[in-house]
Amino acid sequence: MRAGGQPGTVRLAELYAPVAEHLEHSRRLLADELICDQTLISDLYHHVGQFHGKLLRPALLLLSAQAAGGVRPEHHTLAAVVELVHIATLVHDDVLDEADIRRRAATVNRLWGNGQAVLTGDLLYSHAFHLCSSLDSQFAARLVGQTAITVCEGEMMQVANRGNFELTEAEYLDIISRKTAALVETCCHLGARYAGADEATVRRLRAFGHALGLAFQIADDLLDLIGDEAEVGKSLGRDVLERELTLPLIHYLRVGSAGERERLLALLRSSEPPRGRQIAALIRDSESIAYAKAVAHEYSASARAALSELPPSPARDSLGTMAEFVVTRRL
Amino acid sequence: MRAGGQPGTVRLAELYAPVAEHLEHSRRLLADELICDQTLISDLYHHVGQFHGKLLRPALLLLSAQAAGGVRPEHHTLAAVVELVHIATLVHDDVLDEADIRRRAATVNRLWGNGQAVLTGDLLYSHAFHLCSSLDSQFAARLVGQTAITVCEGEMMQVANRGNFELTEAEYLDIISRKTAALVETCCHLGARYAGADEATVRRLRAFGHALGLAFQIADDLLDLIGDEAEVGKSLGRDVLERELTLPLIHYLRVGSAGERERLLALLRSSEPPRGRQIAALIRDSESIAYAKAVAHEYSASARAALSELPPSPARDSLGTMAEFVVTRRL
Repeated sequence: MRAGGQPGTVRLAELYAPVAEHLEHSRRLLADELICDQTLISDLYHHVGQFHGKLLRPALLLLSAQAAGGVRPEHHTLAAVVELVHIATLVHDDVLDEADIRRRAATVNRLWGNGQAVLTGDLLYSHAFHLCSSLDSQFAARLVGQTAITVCEGEMMQVANRGNFELTEAEYLDIISRKTAALVETCCHLGARYAGADEATVRRLRAFGHALGLAFQIADDLLDLIGDEAEVGKSLGRDVLERELTLPLIHYLRVGSAGERERLLALLRSSEPPRGRQIAALIRDSESIAYAKAVAHEYSASARAALSELPPSPARDSLGTMAEFVVTRRL
Repeated sequence: MRAGGQPGTVRLAELYAPVAEHLEHSRRLLADELICDQTLISDLYHHVGQFHGKLLRPALLLLSAQAAGGVRPEHHTLAAVVELVHIATLVHDDVLDEADIRRRAATVNRLWGNGQAVLTGDLLYSHAFHLCSSLDSQFAARLVGQTAITVCEGEMMQVANRGNFELTEAEYLDIISRKTAALVETCCHLGARYAGADEATVRRLRAFGHALGLAFQIADDLLDLIGDEAEVGKSLGRDVLERELTLPLIHYLRVGSAGERERLLALLRSSEPPRGRQIAALIRDSESIAYAKAVAHEYSASARAALSELPPSPARDSLGTMAEFVVTRRL
């Protein structure tokens, strides 16, 4: 979605058209998994339902399946599973970041407190694994379990590096590979594998997912730094507040003059609330924003290149367009 | 373990003797599952290793297996899985309760902060499901997933009832059935099922586990109210601090005179720190302590009764003794 366009729903509906019915099927499976007769828990499920948003991960899984041979019944279940894992991580992320807004709605921690938010995330993880183990084969459960481990490790490394202003670009990429790209790769992997694709196709779709995940996260971090809160619909400036370096800042500290470095470091170390805006102002027109955008675009191009050997299909076209979309939305 | 006896290790070693080698095997599987080359995460694993303590759940699973036909290789994996789920809940409980001490060691939230504690719990859950899905059949993964859902629901109901001083005994029992008894029942269920036991044996061991879980939790809540912190090795008085009613208080509010009720309610509503001690003093010699002990003993007796139809074996004897142990330790 380029700047100036309408926010994504109409365009996404077009992108998702090759798997629209399957996506609807997955959404119903997800809703069925979360039926509960306890009012409190039912209310919480209803509330986190608002966080689904773009359904990027289920759509990627289903489009990968379609592009790799065709959607089968297992894919409906798996698409619901990856969304449950994703939403569980969002709910816990909001606890970690003490965030108040998520997709234009109040966060669970804001409304129900940290305790219920921790438990809601646990409940969603448990539902993911419960639903996943309804399949005949263990392959998906094992892969989703491993992916959840990798995502947690990435997030722990990120938290551990709060306040580490010497974080390198390689370390940053390692962290986002784990915390974001791993799950996106797994979506594409599950789509291809359960479609009965050959190993080469599975490998290509995994490579697509991994590169797409990296492009997405770099673009998301850019939005957090210089995006518009009302437009994006969630609390922004969290990375700076938590003293987590992202790509433009890492680049700025690497290539800036001694004076520029000192000015940015002073702002990063300061505890004054408006430093997010000051940092954005400092860096907005620097080459560091352009650099981070270029790296995101490179991963996006690499994702699209991985699709080139797949047979042409509307699903493959949608995947290619999604790889463009993640780096052009609202930037 | 009666007051005045040595804390449990020697006695537990005797109880666990019928499955000692199997327990050791499970412990190694658990350690292997948690190998990680990231220092931070490795340190966290090492730290939570101290929380294993009594290994009650793995031991129950293995003893149930032994009593129901014999331990098989799947049981080693499953015993590690239930311990991982248990430790994940402990780490998150300490976040919910803002607790500082767990098994004479500092809690994860105390040492690394709430963020890392939330993620450590998530990581341990993920390892549980990852390890569980290494088995050939999906039965265990599905049951463990459902059990984790039930445990979370119980904990959420408990948190939602903080400050509800009209909680009934039936509601309290429903909460502890979910948050504690469900996992203990699942341990015995998995032990029996993977030993190839007939349905009647599975049913009896499930009933044993459920009753044992209830007895254990009622006794644990009694310890929290009137136990000795140095002896128990964790922060006590948390229930009162969180305004969570447990059985003796529910009974006291039900049978006490109007004056006694008012005095207890005033203490429960007060925000003065020492009210835990005052409540303990108020209730220590009342019939409400005796009542809660009697209910715990009834569940313990019911657990032992469920074992009576099983063929005699050292494993069955150990299970019976464990049902006694949980209501007599340090009370």
